[in-house]
Amino acid sequence: VTVLALEHPHLAALLGDTTIARAFEAGAEVRAMLAFEAALARAEAAVGLIPADAAEPIARAAARFVPDHEVLSRGAARDGLIVPALVRVLKEAVGAPHDACVHKGATSQDVIDTGLTVRLKDVVATLHQRLVDLVGRLENAAAHAGDKPLMGRTRMQAALPITLAHRLRQWAAGLAEARDRLDELAPRLLVVQLGGAVGTRTDYGPQADEIERRIAADLGLGVASAPWHTNRARIVEFGDLLGRMAGAAGKIGQDVVLMAQNEMAEATLAVAGTSSVMGHKRNPVKAEVLVTLARFAAGLVGTLHQSLVHEGERSGTAWTLEWLVLPQLAVAAGASLRLTGEVLDETTF
Amino acid sequence: VTVLALEHPHLAALLGDTTIARAFEAGAEVRAMLAFEAALARAEAAVGLIPADAAEPIARAAARFVPDHEVLSRGAARDGLIVPALVRVLKEAVGAPHDACVHKGATSQDVIDTGLTVRLKDVVATLHQRLVDLVGRLENAAAHAGDKPLMGRTRMQAALPITLAHRLRQWAAGLAEARDRLDELAPRLLVVQLGGAVGTRTDYGPQADEIERRIAADLGLGVASAPWHTNRARIVEFGDLLGRMAGAAGKIGQDVVLMAQNEMAEATLAVAGTSSVMGHKRNPVKAEVLVTLARFAAGLVGTLHQSLVHEGERSGTAWTLEWLVLPQLAVAAGASLRLTGEVLDETTF
Amino acid sequence: VTVLALEHPHLAALLGDTTIARAFEAGAEVRAMLAFEAALARAEAAVGLIPADAAEPIARAAARFVPDHEVLSRGAARDGLIVPALVRVLKEAVGAPHDACVHKGATSQDVIDTGLTVRLKDVVATLHQRLVDLVGRLENAAAHAGDKPLMGRTRMQAALPITLAHRLRQWAAGLAEARDRLDELAPRLLVVQLGGAVGTRTDYGPQADEIERRIAADLGLGVASAPWHTNRARIVEFGDLLGRMAGAAGKIGQDVVLMAQNEMAEATLAVAGTSSVMGHKRNPVKAEVLVTLARFAAGLVGTLHQSLVHEGERSGTAWTLEWLVLPQLAVAAGASLRLTGEVLDETTF
Amino acid sequence: VTVLALEHPHLAALLGDTTIARAFEAGAEVRAMLAFEAALARAEAAVGLIPADAAEPIARAAARFVPDHEVLSRGAARDGLIVPALVRVLKEAVGAPHDACVHKGATSQDVIDTGLTVRLKDVVATLHQRLVDLVGRLENAAAHAGDKPLMGRTRMQAALPITLAHRLRQWAAGLAEARDRLDELAPRLLVVQLGGAVGTRTDYGPQADEIERRIAADLGLGVASAPWHTNRARIVEFGDLLGRMAGAAGKIGQDVVLMAQNEMAEATLAVAGTSSVMGHKRNPVKAEVLVTLARFAAGLVGTLHQSLVHEGERSGTAWTLEWLVLPQLAVAAGASLRLTGEVLDETTF
Repeated sequence: VTVLALEHPHLAALLGDTTIARAFEAGAEVRAMLAFEAALARAEAAVGLIPADAAEPIARAAARFVPDHEVLSRGAARDGLIVPALVRVLKEAVGAPHDACVHKGATSQDVIDTGLTVRLKDVVATLHQRLVDLVGRLENAAAHAGDKPLMGRTRMQAALPITLAHRLRQWAAGLAEARDRLDELAPRLLVVQLGGAVGTRTDYGPQADEIERRIAADLGLGVASAPWHTNRARIVEFGDLLGRMAGAAGKIGQDVVLMAQNEMAEATLAVAGTSSVMGHKRNPVKAEVLVTLARFAAGLVGTLHQSLVHEGERSGTAWTLEWLVLPQLAVAAGASLRLTGEVLDETTF
Repeated sequence: VTVLALEHPHLAALLGDTTIARAFEAGAEVRAMLAFEAALARAEAAVGLIPADAAEPIARAAARFVPDHEVLSRGAARDGLIVPALVRVLKEAVGAPHDACVHKGATSQDVIDTGLTVRLKDVVATLHQRLVDLVGRLENAAAHAGDKPLMGRTRMQAALPITLAHRLRQWAAGLAEARDRLDELAPRLLVVQLGGAVGTRTDYGPQADEIERRIAADLGLGVASAPWHTNRARIVEFGDLLGRMAGAAGKIGQDVVLMAQNEMAEATLAVAGTSSVMGHKRNPVKAEVLVTLARFAAGLVGTLHQSLVHEGERSGTAWTLEWLVLPQLAVAAGASLRLTGEVLDETTF
Repeated sequence: VTVLALEHPHLAALLGDTTIARAFEAGAEVRAMLAFEAALARAEAAVGLIPADAAEPIARAAARFVPDHEVLSRGAARDGLIVPALVRVLKEAVGAPHDACVHKGATSQDVIDTGLTVRLKDVVATLHQRLVDLVGRLENAAAHAGDKPLMGRTRMQAALPITLAHRLRQWAAGLAEARDRLDELAPRLLVVQLGGAVGTRTDYGPQADEIERRIAADLGLGVASAPWHTNRARIVEFGDLLGRMAGAAGKIGQDVVLMAQNEMAEATLAVAGTSSVMGHKRNPVKAEVLVTLARFAAGLVGTLHQSLVHEGERSGTAWTLEWLVLPQLAVAAGASLRLTGEVLDETTF
Repeated sequence: VTVLALEHPHLAALLGDTTIARAFEAGAEVRAMLAFEAALARAEAAVGLIPADAAEPIARAAARFVPDHEVLSRGAARDGLIVPALVRVLKEAVGAPHDACVHKGATSQDVIDTGLTVRLKDVVATLHQRLVDLVGRLENAAAHAGDKPLMGRTRMQAALPITLAHRLRQWAAGLAEARDRLDELAPRLLVVQLGGAVGTRTDYGPQADEIERRIAADLGLGVASAPWHTNRARIVEFGDLLGRMAGAAGKIGQDVVLMAQNEMAEATLAVAGTSSVMGHKRNPVKAEVLVTLARFAAGLVGTLHQSLVHEGERSGTAWTLEWLVLPQLAVAAGASLRLTGEVLDETTF
């Protein structure tokens, strides 16, 4: 399976990001869904919606569960998602009498959306750390660059001299902005989705809020102000920010590509791409890829926005579109930050 | 000039938004630029960068100035923007000896970007007010809807009964989310850009920060943490939010279109589109347009992200792309909110 | 009304295209719709669907008709399009007894879509001529460039020497490809839409095909293999080609911007943008705009594709989206070709 | 590796297309590249550019060659593409004295682009066959539907009665249009790229055209009118068509989803999605996915257009963007056609 260049056997080391991609592995998805089912059972037992002694057997079964990918794949091909099949086999694993307590009051969307935010925690943490590191390195580099002169360029024409430090600080500012927005968005993004079949929480009973709080505490998530099964703004807002991250990195990449032009010689690459026939070539491959990923991410952002037209209490159409876009957008943004670090490592300005 | 359906003589009343569009009129643009030049002169006089008696003549000339559109158009066709031509004629209007003090230390981008944020203040205020109103109306309607039943629908199939109030509150939540994000973004967006030719503020002298603060106070704007001539995240973040606003409205529109289907009869239109040949038709035109505008805005968001690859100290390419996208995106989002109100007015659920 | 930079009083001379824009003027739209109504009446009279003496009064009224924009705007705000209002006032202008024969069997979509293709004839002709001219000029320039050397660049690094002629011929090939595709698409695009209320042509009677042929002959259009009220591929295919045209021009623009960098000095601009503060700047404004327009057009192409999901026998949502996108896409592509010519005029390689 | 939902272990059976995906497998890519190197060697031996006895050893080594993915991955991470590493190891496999004849005169782009078109032959053939089948089935179904009535709907309101046959024929027309365009495009798309380092074919010598013809014959491809290393219109045009295919299928999907609404009951699903909690649900999952894929493909089309701004004699930035977009666009279009067939199989109208 190598349709996506971001995870292509030959290209992923350049274009992809294994750390971010891990959050979107099928295994990680299923584990996160099962973690939700376990947390749900514990919360429902605590508030008395299911018998107290049902929680542990369910949680234990969920923890041990090794899904048969073939079963889940067949389920998804019919149902549009794996949850009905997953719940069925989880119930079998739990067995009587507690199987009836599995997935109680829940709907597929509660499982999938909360399963997503559980995994996005790691994605957010990784991106945050990379942004912090990059900003620190760029500010440090700027501090050490002193007054080293650089030609300032506007409209791609020599304008007036600036310092290298000035440009490095511009780069840092773009990434610092992304870092600040990420810190602000994280608590809104990393929340439980709990709505039940049509978002009314009916089958969770009168203690639905308490169930939600307990699941949140269990999974290390926050609590949303309301079920967000049809209001997908937090997902799209995260996608927007991923696109802006890739854009901030793409600006750096474009600058480096221009600075590395032979006649400019403002950037020297310690590691550079070689050519199959031109031995003298030193191609600014990673900087170029930053531009590519920025343009790719930009397009994905626009497509993700299409998913906001989310009809009724659940749109199969719009929700599935999120699944096609968000993972690759996250990996593209992650790869952008990874490569920005490598470009800084391997370039002398 | 009717290339853009949003401002087409026949279609603007449906698809456009005169209030928002006003902020993007050529006249308003020039006035905002001149307001910047006046504020700049006052600030520079206050800190002693230009003679104290230069400020008033410049401010007076700027206030009175009636630009010759032909001159500005010719200037833009050559220079890519109107500022060089505008400064030239403003200097002529000021006359000796103070003409040399006009635009002192500034660059086109300071004028245009600050001129933009001055105008965006009104746009933000209008959008904020509409969002507040719509959220209030929807919550109010939900409170009055009592237990009126509605079929909840998932994947466009009848799922389980909900109440009308439940769906109205979902709609309100989407708009409330946009309102909250707008309130949060506004202080970051509505700021002065002051960088000078290459973003270093060199020609503003050692008191550049004080000049910036004074301009900000004068124009009712905030102060950014650094010049943002090449870090366009605030513009793109605003575009992202405009897209999400249109998306929240598009979700409402899509629901109304579905509810208004004859066989559903969940929504009755007091005002409906007529057909040129089918007298019985009652078309949910405005609700449909909400979907159209959401999809249109989504595409513009993706294109706006392309402008983040902003090379060097100013990218003619990327900056001009912002100009092509942001105004129509703002008008589309504004029209979405306007039409959401009209749809609510004209629909009985 | 200046929301769209392509038709902005100050920016249109740079970014827009008056020739192409003319096809999208409200007046031209109405005239084309009236031309359809006249041709329809003549065709229907010829086959006996309406009395023979009804055609001339209708055609005469249509020719003379000066629409009240206010009436049409109010109609569109209610109906989503101007046709019901337009037909009503046209009927009044025709008067008894022939008013009942106006718009016989037709639907809004027949009027609007055929009205569009009538106007696209001019657009296609203009684009074709410009492409022919540009290809000719580039091939001619290549022939005269002889062996003038130029550094070939791959991945923005000096690769191996080429000749200027080689690069000019690459540019020509991109435009020649667009020209060839346009010639191929034109007969498929420039056709009558005749479907009636739901695309079945029921009210046109058994001689519907003959009516269509007569209208086509009258308006200088071709005949489609079937009504295309819901199969919008021809519109989207034209949009795709407009995007590829702008892309071919954008490639030239990007090359010129790079060649005009001070350190490259491979292109000298006779006409260049000036700066408000840097007297020495010679900005490659028009070449930059070619890049901007290519990226802008690319985004519009993606949005136009969203309109292919055209539900039922007519989608208000998807059709309106076409109206928002196609005109500006056509103007952007037209401006790209216009500016390519200007860049070639004003640049010495 | 499951970042892309199209090839996700659980979702690919629904969203993906194994037949189309096969063309984008890393192994298939390498085999196609090696096939190019073999064909090149044979062609160059035939015209005398390399010794006659060099061709067979090279072709044999290429045929037997089992690449070490780790080596290629490391090469791509440095060079931006695998060709330099691949050529190096192929030369080693060939050994002295013929190793110097490997890849003679060629550049990475000749290998990769021709390797792509070799594989696109299968993609085109699969799509063509599916389109032919679907059109045939729909026309057949229309012929058998007789006068079965269906409510025609415009703007999602009941308009006038049509027949089921009428709507089926609309669907068929959309797919037939895509089929016709594919047949027309195929000979332009499925061609050799032969340009050498900077597109001048210098190192292929005076018999470059003959070498190209021989490679084309060997690989079952056509010959382009010129090297297309920087004129990417054929790739983008193919992407455009893939998007229109997905759009034609998306129109069908949207109609089916609407027809399958409970209150409409115009379509009955033999196979339908089940819910994890609502036993009565029969979700039109596959029809929904058709809409999703159409919107997803639309976004990819816009992004692919960004790659037309292809600077100089080879743009690392733009070319890499093609690699990120085209494979998933092809798979999405392929899946659309596959699912259209399944929807038709499983739905009674």
